[in-house]
Amino acid sequence: MKMIGPTNPSRGARRPLGLDEVRLTTGFWADRQQQNAQVVLPHCITWMERAGWLDNMRVLGAGGPAAGRRGREFADSEIYKLLEAHAWEAGRSGDPATSQFVTAWGATLAAAQAGDGYLNTNFGRPGQAARYTDLAWGHELYCYGHLIQAGVARLRAHGTDDLVSVTCRAADHICAEFGPAGRTAICGHPEIETALVELYRATGQERYLTQARLFVERRGTGLLPPGPFGREYFSDRIPVRQARVLEGHAVRALYLASAAVDVAVETGDDALLDAVVHQWQRTIATRTYLTGGMGSRHEGEAFGDDFELPPDGAYCETCAGVASVQLAWRLLLATGEARYADLVERTLHNVIAGGLAADGHGFFYTNPLQQRVAGAAPEPDALSPRAATGLRAPWFEVSCCPTNLARTLASLAGYTATADAGGLRIELLTGAEIHTTLASGRRVGLRVATDYPWHGRVRIQITDADGAPWRLSIRVPGWARGATLTAGGQTHAAVAGSYAQAERAWRPGDELVVDLPVAPRWTFPDPRIDAVRGTVAVERGPLVYCLESVGLPGGVDLDQLAIVTATPPRDAVTSEPETQAVDVAAIATPSSAPAAWPYAADRPAGAAAAPHPVRLIPFYARANRGPAAMRVFLPEHRAND
Amino acid sequence: MKMIGPTNPSRGARRPLGLDEVRLTTGFWADRQQQNAQVVLPHCITWMERAGWLDNMRVLGAGGPAAGRRGREFADSEIYKLLEAHAWEAGRSGDPATSQFVTAWGATLAAAQAGDGYLNTNFGRPGQAARYTDLAWGHELYCYGHLIQAGVARLRAHGTDDLVSVTCRAADHICAEFGPAGRTAICGHPEIETALVELYRATGQERYLTQARLFVERRGTGLLPPGPFGREYFSDRIPVRQARVLEGHAVRALYLASAAVDVAVETGDDALLDAVVHQWQRTIATRTYLTGGMGSRHEGEAFGDDFELPPDGAYCETCAGVASVQLAWRLLLATGEARYADLVERTLHNVIAGGLAADGHGFFYTNPLQQRVAGAAPEPDALSPRAATGLRAPWFEVSCCPTNLARTLASLAGYTATADAGGLRIELLTGAEIHTTLASGRRVGLRVATDYPWHGRVRIQITDADGAPWRLSIRVPGWARGATLTAGGQTHAAVAGSYAQAERAWRPGDELVVDLPVAPRWTFPDPRIDAVRGTVAVERGPLVYCLESVGLPGGVDLDQLAIVTATPPRDAVTSEPETQAVDVAAIATPSSAPAAWPYAADRPAGAAAAPHPVRLIPFYARANRGPAAMRVFLPEHRAND
Repeated sequence: MKMIGPTNPSRGARRPLGLDEVRLTTGFWADRQQQNAQVVLPHCITWMERAGWLDNMRVLGAGGPAAGRRGREFADSEIYKLLEAHAWEAGRSGDPATSQFVTAWGATLAAAQAGDGYLNTNFGRPGQAARYTDLAWGHELYCYGHLIQAGVARLRAHGTDDLVSVTCRAADHICAEFGPAGRTAICGHPEIETALVELYRATGQERYLTQARLFVERRGTGLLPPGPFGREYFSDRIPVRQARVLEGHAVRALYLASAAVDVAVETGDDALLDAVVHQWQRTIATRTYLTGGMGSRHEGEAFGDDFELPPDGAYCETCAGVASVQLAWRLLLATGEARYADLVERTLHNVIAGGLAADGHGFFYTNPLQQRVAGAAPEPDALSPRAATGLRAPWFEVSCCPTNLARTLASLAGYTATADAGGLRIELLTGAEIHTTLASGRRVGLRVATDYPWHGRVRIQITDADGAPWRLSIRVPGWARGATLTAGGQTHAAVAGSYAQAERAWRPGDELVVDLPVAPRWTFPDPRIDAVRGTVAVERGPLVYCLESVGLPGGVDLDQLAIVTATPPRDAVTSEPETQAVDVAAIATPSSAPAAWPYAADRPAGAAAAPHPVRLIPFYARANRGPAAMRVFLPEHRAND
Repeated sequence: MKMIGPTNPSRGARRPLGLDEVRLTTGFWADRQQQNAQVVLPHCITWMERAGWLDNMRVLGAGGPAAGRRGREFADSEIYKLLEAHAWEAGRSGDPATSQFVTAWGATLAAAQAGDGYLNTNFGRPGQAARYTDLAWGHELYCYGHLIQAGVARLRAHGTDDLVSVTCRAADHICAEFGPAGRTAICGHPEIETALVELYRATGQERYLTQARLFVERRGTGLLPPGPFGREYFSDRIPVRQARVLEGHAVRALYLASAAVDVAVETGDDALLDAVVHQWQRTIATRTYLTGGMGSRHEGEAFGDDFELPPDGAYCETCAGVASVQLAWRLLLATGEARYADLVERTLHNVIAGGLAADGHGFFYTNPLQQRVAGAAPEPDALSPRAATGLRAPWFEVSCCPTNLARTLASLAGYTATADAGGLRIELLTGAEIHTTLASGRRVGLRVATDYPWHGRVRIQITDADGAPWRLSIRVPGWARGATLTAGGQTHAAVAGSYAQAERAWRPGDELVVDLPVAPRWTFPDPRIDAVRGTVAVERGPLVYCLESVGLPGGVDLDQLAIVTATPPRDAVTSEPETQAVDVAAIATPSSAPAAWPYAADRPAGAAAAPHPVRLIPFYARANRGPAAMRVFLPEHRAND
């Protein structure tokens, strides 16, 4: 069936609801979606003009020379992600100017595309390397992947136009060049695979699925050179169906795993799906940060070994968060299991939301859980190196993250609810209006009202129903021990980490209320995570909290605080409208100069001072008050310290 | 005065004794010096032939083309370090074949050198970039630095020959090209600076000192492009006399700091010396590993922030160990303070010694203090990527470390003892024979006999003396609390971290004995080193110990052990001849599969099992029993765990 959203599998446990069925209305995510439309998208256009990436394509479309092309080899992909974001946003809001932006760019792309469907500003013209001469690093297929995702978004949210035509010509070109009769080759950066499956889903053309499957199956057979970071950097060390855990470059690995799910679902390849499920399980168990962030190493932007999760060294690229949401969402649709939706929520609140500055004009590329030294503020008018820490930067030399955030936020309604034959499920707990037709043919409508994540009550009111029974479910996150479900005047315990549900002949005006215990809580890491031994973190609902040096009492050193866990964390009384702070009790060791040698025969003495409260803020809201040192994991005061 | 050794300042608190004055006879370092001569040097030649780096120079010398040149841009420097090692070894052993190797290569270099003194296989020929067109990354001046150090070694250990002539021509060329009337430029990798100072010391030509000072003073003034790792990568963010701590690429920073000491000493620039002393102090206090290793980050091979010392992420390049020894030795000579000699000893025993395989045929490039997963054994016949972990590799694509070890070991006698007007000091506690003439004109001779570091007794017997009084001193390391000094039948307490000394009219046959408490001991890290919170390490004398998964009882997981510090570590009873193992009591948590999510609301329960002994070996001796996981810092069992 037609569905207006980024992922529409033809099989699986759950059907995702589209942007035409779900509208985010108020609250945490609706606010960000508004900001995305009003601030982030114009910001991206401004910076891409400045960086010359938009002009690259205009020049190619006008038959201009290669000389003067600006930006990295994958700069075209930023145009495509920008178009995808606009396509979703136009579909969501109906804004004609937003739609017109896509229309105009479709014409430019059509002019730039070669007669055989090839389209890339970085290869093939006089003075440039020939097409497909650097598949490992050239990103040509990667760029097509983002083009196709933009085309699919346009097709679903609007219908056929220039962008869609360009997309299909490019996809046909790829099938001809890289199909069974073409080159046996793959791209250094997976992305084309999910895109081709989605184009198959949107058009019904089997050849796109066949090509995607070929690309997935070719991986891990040694088609790429090993490169400085090893074959795992390219997700090319072993075939995807043999891998036991995600490794190497995090975004590459997550995009490939998403594609493997897509191929498995569309071809009925349960063994392949199982392989990815096992990889995901192991990755979540041993290689994922509390925030949902993935990627422990700066070198190679890579997953580390099991339990190698340093908070300060963490890479946790924003794009890896986007990719992880895509993978978990696909696994949720395939299996229906709540754990996947839990990770989507965790990653959205702590990686995606935190990638964006409060004013919408800055972005984090990396999202470490500890900032040792207050970083410098980035130059307001300069491209930042991609791994800049400190404050969020307006744009990067490698600026994959801003447009990736933009397209995710614009399509977020598509990650909010799912359906099966028997009913409807709320996956993302946020203010929304939902209208759909169940597979049974029954029309249903409802309204979700909540201040979540600040408050734990989620109220669902039925707005449309014909009186026949159907099942309404709502996700109860894994941390929500003690949650309750109230429906029809009765309150029941709801099981954390599953779906609370009520099946009945709903009538307009009926209500279902879920109460989640969002009070702040301690979270202890597994002792095998060496880098955070002896520490504790604070979570509140789906939000991870952090302590910043900004706002600490004078003379208190963030690195010489120990938390007293005997005193529970509690909500701070603040006047800030949106960000609920949390107070914990901490003992401050008087700030001291380093010893001559930081290793000693005697155990260091702990402080004996009385505890005082210190105030934590949500991790996503960090670095909005100026440069600051910051920690998520806080050393715990021990009685015998 | 003439001195046969790598560093011969004209001023300072201590004069180093040379290879003609000190001979290593038996024990830890004499054994390694023998192995260096018999195994390491031939191994280096074999691999440099294989890699084509020696042929590069032969082809240039024969007027051949640039095409076919192999290796990285700094491959010439490996030839020079190999020559330096041979020059010292020939001087030490008097072996004619070793000396002939240097002679023959001197002729090859003379043939390869351009008429104006330029010498580099990677620039300037048809098909190559022009000279000095890539100072940031081209390493031309860096290569000259190693050429000059080889030439100085030859001049001091042998006298003038082709290599020395080539060296002086190259140095004169540099002064002409980069002097006050030449380019205002510096090299991306410091090295030329110390070399020029040493050539000044060896030849008395002031222009070399002037040029070295220019290079040091130009640094930090923005002469190099920032590059992907920032200006600190090049030690070029701020002038050396303004820096408060070492930062950026560790080897670059340490070579530059060494040069700054050299310049400061030779020009009487006490402010510059003070600046380096402060940088060293802060670096030792906050950015140095227990092993003496330096460099916390793989990305940029760089120092981290203060207290950023992850054991698994540690880079701790072997060459940074060599460079740190050079810096500390220079500071020791300038100031006479024992703390510098302590760091030299720590670094030699735990970084330098560990960089070399037991059989002398393998090398570590990085020296992390934790190996999470037993690494694969490197291909025996292939160049390894430089940051290979697991076992030591026979050679690397970037193979700076093997020849750096070789030249250090060949000249190690030069780091063993120092003199001043009043007497002689033993800095490195190892079997040696020493004969010298004090500044007073008095000839003295002595023999050092010891099994250190395995046993704590160091016995010094006077072998030559004329009956007049002089002071004999021996370093008592900072960890050696409870050391004693026995001389003339009387035993006194000796202060750890200083020099025990006795001044008397020594006669041949007189003895001085120092007893150092080398029993194994616990060492606790500063609580600000987040990455090792809650752990303890074992040291024994100057040696850091580690626990390897190889040798653990079956079923015991290295990552699920907790050490009981109430039971002191004790020497193991083993039959191994050289390597004293240490046993500690550990509680093994039954090996368990990872939880679904490694963060929990409940504090993880500790194991209640009875402790059993596990056996540690010296860190330097790790990875000689096959691939293994390994830890230096071991989680400590806490009563309320």
